[in-house]
Amino acid sequence: MIKRLLILLPVLTLALQEGLAQRPPAIQSPEVHTDHSITFRYYSRVAQTVTVKGEFANTSFSLVKDTSGIWSVRVPPVQPDIYPYSFVVDNVELADPNNTYIFANERFKRSIVDIPGDTPLVHVLQQVPHGQVSYRYYHSTTLGVTRTLLVYTPPGFAAGTGKKYPVLYLIHGGSDTEETWTKVGRANFIADNLIAQRSATPMIIVMPYGNVRPRPMADFTKDVVNDIIPFIESNYPVLQDSKHRAVAGFSVGGGQTLNIGLTNTDKFAWIASYAPYTATEEFQKNFSNWTPDANVLNQQLKLFTISVGTEDFLYEPVKKNIAFFTEKKVRVKPYIVAGGHTWMNCKQFLRTTLQEIFK
Amino acid sequence: MIKRLLILLPVLTLALQEGLAQRPPAIQSPEVHTDHSITFRYYSRVAQTVTVKGEFANTSFSLVKDTSGIWSVRVPPVQPDIYPYSFVVDNVELADPNNTYIFANERFKRSIVDIPGDTPLVHVLQQVPHGQVSYRYYHSTTLGVTRTLLVYTPPGFAAGTGKKYPVLYLIHGGSDTEETWTKVGRANFIADNLIAQRSATPMIIVMPYGNVRPRPMADFTKDVVNDIIPFIESNYPVLQDSKHRAVAGFSVGGGQTLNIGLTNTDKFAWIASYAPYTATEEFQKNFSNWTPDANVLNQQLKLFTISVGTEDFLYEPVKKNIAFFTEKKVRVKPYIVAGGHTWMNCKQFLRTTLQEIFK
Repeated sequence: MIKRLLILLPVLTLALQEGLAQRPPAIQSPEVHTDHSITFRYYSRVAQTVTVKGEFANTSFSLVKDTSGIWSVRVPPVQPDIYPYSFVVDNVELADPNNTYIFANERFKRSIVDIPGDTPLVHVLQQVPHGQVSYRYYHSTTLGVTRTLLVYTPPGFAAGTGKKYPVLYLIHGGSDTEETWTKVGRANFIADNLIAQRSATPMIIVMPYGNVRPRPMADFTKDVVNDIIPFIESNYPVLQDSKHRAVAGFSVGGGQTLNIGLTNTDKFAWIASYAPYTATEEFQKNFSNWTPDANVLNQQLKLFTISVGTEDFLYEPVKKNIAFFTEKKVRVKPYIVAGGHTWMNCKQFLRTTLQEIFK
Repeated sequence: MIKRLLILLPVLTLALQEGLAQRPPAIQSPEVHTDHSITFRYYSRVAQTVTVKGEFANTSFSLVKDTSGIWSVRVPPVQPDIYPYSFVVDNVELADPNNTYIFANERFKRSIVDIPGDTPLVHVLQQVPHGQVSYRYYHSTTLGVTRTLLVYTPPGFAAGTGKKYPVLYLIHGGSDTEETWTKVGRANFIADNLIAQRSATPMIIVMPYGNVRPRPMADFTKDVVNDIIPFIESNYPVLQDSKHRAVAGFSVGGGQTLNIGLTNTDKFAWIASYAPYTATEEFQKNFSNWTPDANVLNQQLKLFTISVGTEDFLYEPVKKNIAFFTEKKVRVKPYIVAGGHTWMNCKQFLRTTLQEIFK
């Protein structure tokens, strides 16, 4: 019997080899070095050119092929952070086949690379108590479909203990998905770390899917107010007044945040809009004739902040948004940082918001 | 003020256009038609050839370019199911840029397309009560790292009610990730639907990350027994005896399932191995000298099943595995179906298992 089983080994190995014959060799990419340089690798025996471009640098880098068909390049040290990148192989842009981590998005497939800092960055999984992220399914009466949303519950969260939590509703950018805030934004680890440092109040973070076409503002606002909030409040032990509800979002989600928050100040006392995209007819419709009672609004809102990076392609329009609200005497707190329309900045914006809300 | 804001619109639109200038147009791909045919689309003005290949057919299909640079092909009706596919653009294989749904895997990036049946398939999100899938983080003392695992809790699950649940530990294939059983295998929807039909017992399903190198059998078995089971049993209201623990897995995970289950029959009374890959030295080491007391084993095990498809490249070795256990007088239930080493078959195998265990 021993003999019989041992005879199997070459048969099985052969079968696996046949089955996997069309697969390229296992290679490591990206490989992040301790000096913060990164080696990217790609396998192809037929490609003519391979380059890598990522948000860690303004230029592309050319990979060089070795005799086994493995292309590679070592990119000089970069600032520790998480960056999207992609390969361009003979004019075709694609995600790194050997990297599990994909930017959750509807319009492109890019990989992400995480360069750890010499001291742990706020978005990194650290040895602290961890919350959890749950995929939930709610029926949207507004949209007539069942949709997914993600719910972060903080460390130590347990239903049925009597403890109630405040809730942040956190919205992704225009072609992102309900997973982008965790997969790329690492919202859960940022929250874990800030809660462990006692810099943030333990809270629930709800990450819905914001893409509603053709009316991302009006219909998604209804979905949040009429479907998502009731779903959360009937399924989680949460505090149900405006002082314990916040809304934040990035890009198209930043525009949605302004719409959701400012047209529902009875429901949200905390509004954080990140690099909002507001060039929509719906935004015009809601705000061009907007005549708020600034005194009332400023009393209702505990925080109204608009963030943007100075190299963001929306920097000028966002500055005009801020001027618009200021001119209306609405108290808005600008948060202007370096950087562009990126998820590196999103993480920074969220870190700031989590330390400001529910205080 | 109205005038001022309206003037902003063209400015904002221009800014967005500049910022997004490098992005291709929004196109729909895949588009699944009611007759189960599928249109695939890809945008490129420079590509010479574009084909699509998927597990829905044995051949590739060539896409044809229109004057706007959009390539497309309509693939004839296919059997309703979820299939992996990819594009090949001038010899470069890549995921569909416009499809959000990616096959969770470490070695390749493929997209998945879901062709609904005329009556809902068992893996489809239906109008039934939904469980939830939670991303949890546990510290593995075996491996010295914090790792992610996914936990499905059934509809109506609530801690603190006194109700306790059985647990299925469900392991992915060799280059898959902890997400593959939900993202590709739809384990949560299969469970939701079978529980709603009362065909499955409400249970918790734990989906760990099985890739442990270089010893996927020995070290992952330790991780499951010494770290994962204690983590689950200290965080969830679960029944803690072998009759309420099951282990199942696919491919390399099917081999791990045999190792975990058969070397821990005091802990698992239900073992379901799907197309196991057993051509490893570790498997040889554990089983070449294996002299089980078949009577005792057959009493301990409520179910020991091995599944495989007749076109699986492991079909012959898996048949030999079954013969090996049968010769040892260990009662093994073969489940032989059509099809290959695929996640279409995995869903079928899981559907069968969920209806057999904890009864």
